[in-house]
Order: sequence, then structure tokens, then C-alpha cells
Amino acid sequence: MQKTRLDTSRIRAARRVIDPVFLDTPLYRCEALEPGLGCEVSIKLETANPVRSFKARGTEVVASLLAANGSRDVVCASAGNLGQALAWSGRGRGLEVTVVASRFATAAKLDRIRALGAGLELVDGDHEMARERAAAIARYDGIRLLEDSLDIETCEGAATIGLELVDTVPSFDTVLIALGGGALATGVGHVVKAAAPEVEVICVQPLGAPAMTRSWRGRRVVTTDSTDTIADGVAGRRPIPAVLHDLLVVADDAVLVRESSITAGMRMLLDHAGLVVEPSAALGIAAILEDRDRFAGRHVATIVCGSNVDVDAYRHWVGVDPVRGR
Amino acid sequence: MQKTRLDTSRIRAARRVIDPVFLDTPLYRCEALEPGLGCEVSIKLETANPVRSFKARGTEVVASLLAANGSRDVVCASAGNLGQALAWSGRGRGLEVTVVASRFATAAKLDRIRALGAGLELVDGDHEMARERAAAIARYDGIRLLEDSLDIETCEGAATIGLELVDTVPSFDTVLIALGGGALATGVGHVVKAAAPEVEVICVQPLGAPAMTRSWRGRRVVTTDSTDTIADGVAGRRPIPAVLHDLLVVADDAVLVRESSITAGMRMLLDHAGLVVEPSAALGIAAILEDRDRFAGRHVATIVCGSNVDVDAYRHWVGVDPVRGR
Repeated sequence: MQKTRLDTSRIRAARRVIDPVFLDTPLYRCEALEPGLGCEVSIKLETANPVRSFKARGTEVVASLLAANGSRDVVCASAGNLGQALAWSGRGRGLEVTVVASRFATAAKLDRIRALGAGLELVDGDHEMARERAAAIARYDGIRLLEDSLDIETCEGAATIGLELVDTVPSFDTVLIALGGGALATGVGHVVKAAAPEVEVICVQPLGAPAMTRSWRGRRVVTTDSTDTIADGVAGRRPIPAVLHDLLVVADDAVLVRESSITAGMRMLLDHAGLVVEPSAALGIAAILEDRDRFAGRHVATIVCGSNVDVDAYRHWVGVDPVRGR
Repeated sequence: MQKTRLDTSRIRAARRVIDPVFLDTPLYRCEALEPGLGCEVSIKLETANPVRSFKARGTEVVASLLAANGSRDVVCASAGNLGQALAWSGRGRGLEVTVVASRFATAAKLDRIRALGAGLELVDGDHEMARERAAAIARYDGIRLLEDSLDIETCEGAATIGLELVDTVPSFDTVLIALGGGALATGVGHVVKAAAPEVEVICVQPLGAPAMTRSWRGRRVVTTDSTDTIADGVAGRRPIPAVLHDLLVVADDAVLVRESSITAGMRMLLDHAGLVVEPSAALGIAAILEDRDRFAGRHVATIVCGSNVDVDAYRHWVGVDPVRGR
């Protein structure tokens, strides 16, 4: 395998500073999903923890380094999950955390960021504008900017999921990974390709936020002017070159899925697995739904990466009506 | 502590024969629930596994013993979760599993029992009639009858949850446990009281299925003529004397909750924790809702013991309507 920015020994070291509440998450066959999908499906569940997403694996690494260095402040841009995780990790280590988010971000995520004691600044624009504002705050105040996917700790934290996947016997044929900024995909992808190169790594992104997928396909950064997807956690427009480079090394494919497939995936996970998931966490199931032949008879693992939803939006997406049925 | 039928060294031994997919389940603070409940709440999540309930901890112990003894057949009565778990554990060890259930049992549970390859016999009556029929099959066919809560392996399996709870730092003030036949309550209660006697063990049962609670209060077996609750997993009428004896040793209290509190608990777990749970798994939250003063400021752990629901019934209980709100 060509080199990436990641290193397996550093990833193993990262595990040792992450609060165990975020590690060794459930990984299990979900046979009730299989008749509807035509393949064996295993779930790696990253939602049963205090922040309901995988992001704290990375923020634990960052916050422990900051605390060890005597830093007191950190700022990040976030669609909501990174900010919530950084707020949690920072609170336990006496850090002042500032989160910049779009005012259109999922309200439940913003509420949790506030509840965890972080400062929250909203920008009147999308996630890319929040990134710019966070960078400006960091420069102006001279404090640490945490950049998701660019900062290697975020990738190493996510990569610890990969360690837990490759330690499994029997292994999988394919791992389906939600693709946004790329920390999850490059982190997990690095470990899978280093330890089990025969396992296929497929990244999944919404058709409405295809920048990184188009970049992967074109082998150069492609940006978009806007995004249009309910999968807020992966709705970026400006891929980071260094992350794309790593993704080109570790991903076997990157696919785009329709919004209707994402909501169908969310409904399947609710109805057949009893799991509430946010749209980004249903991308893997959506990919299977859109290309059953490709996965037929294979054993597929998909990372259910978050469950932070606005309740009303979720109820709308999964189309639940006790009186009329759906 | 007075003796119970349980023994901590046997419980530790039980851990070694249980498939790891059922062990070391998530245990985490759920702060988003706390403003609504007025106390610190931690969740012990027993639903993120192939059978979506804690019952496989016990059936793994039973099935491994049967397989070691060269047995080929086993029968049990079940409201659905024990049968599903025994089907899973038996399938992996070449056992022929027969499950007897009420024809009024949760359809999703019965479907999973069939899908896992077990024989399923339905009786035209309630769970107590299923128990009688299972016993008759065992006598007639000369095969092993697995009796939930009476057979010590079911209690020892459940008790492994207790080991995972008492190994936690900091400890809890109170553990809330769903009370049905009593395997979960006596198993977990035994470990908690042996290792951390200062932790309060409170059992929770629906007002509509109060037999074991009334027995505990009266210190003698009290049966009822019928049950009337949506919490199918705990709807027994005839407590087992040996189990009651153990419950009298380990439980600090046993409380009854209304159906409306159970559905309110299910809704809270969905809306604030992103968890789909079956009614029995919401009993702990229901108990807090009914007596906030009792738990105010305490740190309470509750075992979310199962998530097998009929989708339509669940949607009705949680009252979800995307058009009108609830």
C-alpha cells in the first residue's frame, strides 16, 4: 500500500487516550435486514455513547494532547457532531471550547453543544462559511483550530474503528463508509487496507453533496457551489487536498446515492434493526439498496456513525403516522 | 447478604462461555434525558446484538452446557425474547430448539424465532399456558425444558450484566431493573448487592402485571388471574417460589408503574436518547417519571433490556405523526 498520512502504531497509541466509553462499540450481524438487502449485513454501531456519534474518538485524542500541552482553548467548525464531541472531550479536561456552526445546522446538535458548556457561534451561511469563521477566530485569538479530516488526530481517532473491524473473525468482504470531509473514510480505510487489503473499502456520499466523490473519481480536488442533502454530517463542498490524497490510496470506490435511498435506509434501520440513525449513518444501507447485484451474497459491514437527529425531521423522514400508516 | 441461588464465581465462569457479541455492552451517561427526569441517568444498553435483548447471555450458558453434554434438543416457553435467544444460541451449536409461545405474542418476536430456525408452537392462551405446554412437551419427548428464571443458567447469564455494572467507576446510587420472571432482577441484584451493597436495587413492574411485585411485598407467592400491559416481556402471573426467595434477598424495593408512564418512557428514550426500546425496557424510566422526588439528584442506572417491537404498535405507542405532530 502507498503511504498515507496515517500510521497504524500511532492509531494504536490513540486508543490509549480515548475514554473507553467510546471504544469497542457493538459489531454484530443484523439478519433481519438481510432479506431486504440480499447480502449479509453487519452493523458497527457508533451511537451508543454520550455524544451519539463516532466523532469523540478523534476529539478525545485532540483534547488529551491539548491538555498535556497546557493549552486552554480550542475552536472548530462543525455541522454539529464534531462540536458536540469536542465540547464533551474539552469539558472533562478543563478546555474552553468554541464551536462555529451554520445557523441551518440540526437544532438538536446545536442544543447539545450548548448543553455541554461550549461557546457556540452561528454563521449565516453553510458549513464552509463556518470553517472560514473558525479559522478567523483561531488566527485572531491565537488559539488552536481543530480542522476535521485535515488534523491527523481526527483521522486517527476515527481509524480506531478500523482496528475494531479488522480484529473481527470472520472478516468482511466489504466495508461501507460514509464520506464527508474524509476523516472516517481515510482513517478506517487506512487500517482496513493495511491489515486486510482484500476487504473492499467503498465510500458513500449523497448525490446532493458529491464534492469528495467527484474529486476521488477525477483524482483532483473538485468543489461545488452548494449542497442539497438531508445528510448534514457529510455536506461539504471543498475537499482538502491532503485528505483526497489519502482517500485515493485507501478507497476502492466512491459512490453517490439518492435522497430517497437515504430515507429508505433510515426506515429499514428503524423497522428491522430498531436503530434510530441520522441520514449520514444510513448511507451504507442506501448504497446497497441502489446496487443490490453488486453486493449480492457478500458480507458487508457498515458503520452507523451517528444518531443525532431533530425529532420532528426524523419523524418526517421515516414517515410515521399511527393513524393512517405510511 | 443472605445466600441466594447465585454464586459470583459461577457468574464469572458463565462470562467465559457467552459469545462476546453479547458481553461488555454500552454503559453511558445520557445527559439529554436528565432535564426531564431530574437525576443523573446512565443507560446499560442490551439491544445492540443479534437478538436485540439481554436474553442470549443466559441461553449461551444453557446451550453451551447442552452441547458439552451431547444433548440435541431443548424446549422453552417464551414471550419472544428468550425463544429468539435460545434459537440463536442453539443454531450455533447444532441444537434442535422448540419454542412455545402465546399466539398473542409480539409478531416480530415470533417471526425472528422462525427465521432463526427454531420450531415454534403457538398456544391459544397466555404465557402461563405456554409454560404448561412447554413442560408437557419436555416430559413427553424426554428433552430438556429451559425454564426462564427458575433455571439458574438464565439468572447467571443475566447476572453478567451486574458484573459489568459494578466494575464501573464511579458507581451508581440506584439500579432500576425490569421485573418479570425475575432472572434479570435476581441475577443483577445478586451481583450488585454482593459487590456494592450500598447501591439500591429497585425492581419495576407494570401495574397490569403485578404478581411478582405483590409477592415481594407480601413475602409469599401471589398469583393473578390475568395481565393487562403492553410490556409483554414481563407479563407473568405465577411467580416461582425459589426466584421470589432470591428477590427478597437482593431487592431493596419493587414498584409498579402505569401504562402511560411506560409509553412516556419509550417516547423519552426515542426523542432524547435516540433509542428504540420495547415496553419492558422503558420500565426504569417510567419509575423515575412516577416518583421524581425519590430519585432527585441521584445517579440512576437503568438496563435497556430489549428492543423487539412490532413496528406498527411501536409507532402507535410513541405517537408519531409527521403531519399533525403528537
